[in-house]
Amino acid sequence: MSQSVNRQPGRYFEDYPVGAVFAGGPVAVSEEEILAFARRYDPQPMHVDKAAAEAGQFGGLIASGWHTGALMMQLLTRYFVPSPGNLASPGLDELRWLLPVRPGDRLSLRATVLTARRSRSKPDQGIVTSLVEVLNQKDEVVMTLKPISLMRCREPSP
Amino acid sequence: MSQSVNRQPGRYFEDYPVGAVFAGGPVAVSEEEILAFARRYDPQPMHVDKAAAEAGQFGGLIASGWHTGALMMQLLTRYFVPSPGNLASPGLDELRWLLPVRPGDRLSLRATVLTARRSRSKPDQGIVTSLVEVLNQKDEVVMTLKPISLMRCREPSP
Repeated sequence: MSQSVNRQPGRYFEDYPVGAVFAGGPVAVSEEEILAFARRYDPQPMHVDKAAAEAGQFGGLIASGWHTGALMMQLLTRYFVPSPGNLASPGLDELRWLLPVRPGDRLSLRATVLTARRSRSKPDQGIVTSLVEVLNQKDEVVMTLKPISLMRCREPSP
Repeated sequence: MSQSVNRQPGRYFEDYPVGAVFAGGPVAVSEEEILAFARRYDPQPMHVDKAAAEAGQFGGLIASGWHTGALMMQLLTRYFVPSPGNLASPGLDELRWLLPVRPGDRLSLRATVLTARRSRSKPDQGIVTSLVEVLNQKDEVVMTLKPISLMRCREPSP
């Protein structure tokens, strides 16, 4: 079962069956934003110093991995997170930064539901895990992670 | 073996033995920054809408989990990441958001080395995994994760 949809109002736990795919984008990554984010949160030479970055292992400025994660979250709120069904995220597993993200890149999201189960203790809640892939404009996967999402159910368990 | 140190210049893979502890902080979390970060990256009501957040499950505005992660990275660059020995991070495992982060909180870092091994293929590189805990001003652990760090060795393997 596969479906590729944008965010719709009125989504709940029941709308995230195993195998469902949620996709969307892109969001553009500018040099200005890479520098501003990294100056505050990750001031390493490869993220904040153009000359050092060009001489370094990546051959140019690259985005902080946490900046890529924040942009992924922006896409997740647009194309995956249910509304009004979202409750919270307890965390995520297996985050991998696979390729550098550079100024001018355009990132898109593909989220595939891996598991979906109702809470044993709370009949109005469900837990969804998914594989999230972040792709650049060449369709290369630059980042993957497996977030855990706590969602409201449309219909509580009996 | 345990040591609690701030970031020193000249650190390499060899300075991260199993059990070593790196700690530091705090960084303050302002309402203004919570709102600015979330408006750009995570515009959900609990992060951007004070009135909705006060009426919601957390009883007030809370920071985006990715904002807490970005602040953690700021502390990591100050107190953990080796210089000049840092190469890159391939990713992280088991990130958990345990407690909300609120305006006025002050966050600190404690990173404990879990594993440290030399690369089999690259004699001048090593791989360190650690348990990172982010604590608030009440010494409550608000977030944990296990980052993977690729570092240069001071002395290459023979």
